[in-house]
Amino acid sequence: MMLTPERMAPLKARRLGIDTHHEPTLYLPANSHVCRSEGFESLSRVLITTHQGQHLIASLNIVTGVLLADDEVGFSESAWQRLQLHPEDPIWLSHPKPVQSLSHVRAKVYGHELDDLQFQSIINDIVDGRYADVHLAAFITACGDDSLTDREITSLTQAMVKSGSTLDWRLPLVVDKHCVGGLPGNRTTPIVVSILAACGLTVPKTSSRAITSPAGTADTMETLTEVSLSLEQMREVVGSEGGCLAWGGAMRLSPADDLLIQVERALDIDSEGQLIASVLSKKIAAGATHVLIDIPVGPTAKVRSQDAADRLADSFRAVADNLGLKLQVLFTDGSQPVGRGIGPALEAHDLLAVLQNLPTAPLDLKQRAEQVAGAMLAMVREISLEDAQALAEETLCSGAAWAKFRAICEAQGGLRHPPVAPYRYALVAERRGRVSTIDNRILAKIAKLAGAPADPAAGVEIPVKLGDEVECQDILLMIHAENAGELNYAVEYLNDHTQVIQLESDTQGEQVSPC
Amino acid sequence: MMLTPERMAPLKARRLGIDTHHEPTLYLPANSHVCRSEGFESLSRVLITTHQGQHLIASLNIVTGVLLADDEVGFSESAWQRLQLHPEDPIWLSHPKPVQSLSHVRAKVYGHELDDLQFQSIINDIVDGRYADVHLAAFITACGDDSLTDREITSLTQAMVKSGSTLDWRLPLVVDKHCVGGLPGNRTTPIVVSILAACGLTVPKTSSRAITSPAGTADTMETLTEVSLSLEQMREVVGSEGGCLAWGGAMRLSPADDLLIQVERALDIDSEGQLIASVLSKKIAAGATHVLIDIPVGPTAKVRSQDAADRLADSFRAVADNLGLKLQVLFTDGSQPVGRGIGPALEAHDLLAVLQNLPTAPLDLKQRAEQVAGAMLAMVREISLEDAQALAEETLCSGAAWAKFRAICEAQGGLRHPPVAPYRYALVAERRGRVSTIDNRILAKIAKLAGAPADPAAGVEIPVKLGDEVECQDILLMIHAENAGELNYAVEYLNDHTQVIQLESDTQGEQVSPC
Repeated sequence: MMLTPERMAPLKARRLGIDTHHEPTLYLPANSHVCRSEGFESLSRVLITTHQGQHLIASLNIVTGVLLADDEVGFSESAWQRLQLHPEDPIWLSHPKPVQSLSHVRAKVYGHELDDLQFQSIINDIVDGRYADVHLAAFITACGDDSLTDREITSLTQAMVKSGSTLDWRLPLVVDKHCVGGLPGNRTTPIVVSILAACGLTVPKTSSRAITSPAGTADTMETLTEVSLSLEQMREVVGSEGGCLAWGGAMRLSPADDLLIQVERALDIDSEGQLIASVLSKKIAAGATHVLIDIPVGPTAKVRSQDAADRLADSFRAVADNLGLKLQVLFTDGSQPVGRGIGPALEAHDLLAVLQNLPTAPLDLKQRAEQVAGAMLAMVREISLEDAQALAEETLCSGAAWAKFRAICEAQGGLRHPPVAPYRYALVAERRGRVSTIDNRILAKIAKLAGAPADPAAGVEIPVKLGDEVECQDILLMIHAENAGELNYAVEYLNDHTQVIQLESDTQGEQVSPC
Repeated sequence: MMLTPERMAPLKARRLGIDTHHEPTLYLPANSHVCRSEGFESLSRVLITTHQGQHLIASLNIVTGVLLADDEVGFSESAWQRLQLHPEDPIWLSHPKPVQSLSHVRAKVYGHELDDLQFQSIINDIVDGRYADVHLAAFITACGDDSLTDREITSLTQAMVKSGSTLDWRLPLVVDKHCVGGLPGNRTTPIVVSILAACGLTVPKTSSRAITSPAGTADTMETLTEVSLSLEQMREVVGSEGGCLAWGGAMRLSPADDLLIQVERALDIDSEGQLIASVLSKKIAAGATHVLIDIPVGPTAKVRSQDAADRLADSFRAVADNLGLKLQVLFTDGSQPVGRGIGPALEAHDLLAVLQNLPTAPLDLKQRAEQVAGAMLAMVREISLEDAQALAEETLCSGAAWAKFRAICEAQGGLRHPPVAPYRYALVAERRGRVSTIDNRILAKIAKLAGAPADPAAGVEIPVKLGDEVECQDILLMIHAENAGELNYAVEYLNDHTQVIQLESDTQGEQVSPC
């Protein structure tokens, strides 16, 4: 009576070349023999079985017309690649089991506290591909009101660590740092890692791609070298150089995080609980023992007030404590962008200038990198903060950090020149005055509309700082884009949001004078 | 400098026949001239413009390989049909504007109270197709913790009414009823509408399809007659017969509701605020002045306790009051399914038996229909509840309600025989005993796994009631399915959830004896 998939006539796999992003999708002809007999036409998800016994759950689209023959089944790129299929491979389809852990997501929606096992079953189902995008969106949103308790964030973090690979360096001291973001251009990580590794610390740094920002460290580093390292490659780089600057997503360190981040980006939601679990699960999986968290605070940064920063820091400390991780928080100035560039390649140019001690290097980026590296050195070396910062500065100015950075990039596959964008648009001052406000959020939005981070050369260059005196016709910001369409899109948005940079007159009472 | 879509070379529209459900999707070749020049490869959403100046926002999938020629652009069925395209129609693509109202959704995620204008802009963007499924999922989830205030539910309801068509009957008394559901088989509506219309009341009833249940009234009525009426057709039916039994989705009465319901179904989330806004927006848009809300209460019904029922009733009353609607709440027994059938056609067979006064008619369904119709008659005729229920019973027993039901179905396009399912599976009692518990939720799940509501004949038949004495080998429930695959799927679930119906021994202390 029970038909097992194996007893049905198989369908032939066909690669359709459709990029459905990370959500595997299957295309089934309405006239397929299994469509009516198995009731697939009323399903939105289907279980795929290959002749090698591999399984994958995919979203199902029914197809009418001539696109597919009746005995074919079409695959999106992500489904094809995950199953490593060949054309005409035999394929069996069946009903997926109900996803039990969705009842825990619903419990969370209704405000119930979840326990270790419930988070683990949610995260396991996510990693196994049982959640459609709408389910991921519901989970992210349900955790998105900052209502997770520290106990729940701990459970979520542990579940995320357990769902993937972990590294064990067999060393008493493995350091890592993370900036909670929200501050465009704040690309200290490559500089800090170079300083710390040059000082002899072990820094197996993995970074994520941007969630809601125009660039993540992995996006920027990708313009300079290879970042998609395997675990084995990462071990080799860290073994020879003491540090690395890799993308975490290729290593299955907390793989649930990589799936959640894609939907968080579409929703532009990045909640406190998910943020802490995302950061700490990556650090623990990468084998870190000591972690420094940089929280920029400012009116248009991600964390807008010292109160909010204190609450976030308390949660970070409590969760780290539950997990046996040494953690220190550093509050930094979040009132304006750091460096000149916002966007993967533009930020790469800035950090190269700092590492190379060029006279054009942005001083604020240099000082922040020294501040963060100093705090970490003080934490693990048990020296004064003053001595630690002097050591960081010396390591940078002597060229030791630059040599270490080059060595890491060479070990990862070679140092590259970051690209430059052909399309530009300059916003110039229409009057003289002093820069009084810079809106981080609008700047980030313009950089994203210009194409960052998917287009590595796209972004915004901002040559002015708060308090700078500008003359009429001075450039206030420059949009960079890889094509005309995205440039126009960013310019349109800029024209609607001219408050991005505001000037005030130099002398009290004097009116700002137009050119 | 600015390229308008019209100044670019158009692409040729091609229908791919892919059913992406309600989410319009566009397939663009990676080698298309606009793909690089406009930066579409990094987009997930795109704005379509036709040569007739129509616009639609769609999800974007980039395609490599031979599926499409470089100057073609593929359309999913929903995108093709919404734009009413012809093959090779010229098509222009551009970047959609950022969806401003998503910032309100994020505010809701963070627990802020939204006002009239914010809900209106969210609902307008949803109706205009600016929300991808993940955005709908986030909005539903953010409103899903029953955290909407009565003021917010009122705003949401008004916004949903304003976003679609409305009916004005120019009558002082237009009645409607709604059951909040959660009780399988509780298909009183067609009987109640027939009684009330036979008594001379105006009942322009529109119903939705199932959200998380195995059947909605529209699903059941569709097995009996045409339910996809236009507004004009509905006016004619109600004009001639005093009542109708139509699907609301074809009329653009609160069209946002129809889009939200599709994602609510995928998430299996149906929150209190969304529930009230969904129900009342449909009633107000359909021109109702007096509404009766039936809330079944039981341990495995949607509303599990009298406390929860009271809270829900208070919110219903407060929101109706804000909107000038007369509303009365009726609490009913929600401890077990109503009638014998669960699923569109199975429920149709039950209600036909009641209307036709057949000796096999399920008594509980008949009595509930009389109870609901009586409460409504008492509310609007200002007679005692006793007299009103006697009037309802007389209208049913005299055949007047059955004559009215037939007349309504004829006016809607003719009365049909509901289908029957070829595949069955019987669960029989393995011992004698008394039925002590019936789990509504597990029953509903089995009916859905068997194919309901998409397969109209699928579902569960349950011939026993709480307290019934059953003999060994008596049938406890019968699964109906339209194909073997779904039958097996439902049977598997049943085998894992045998607690769906529990028996206890007849005499205290005596062990239940196996056959």
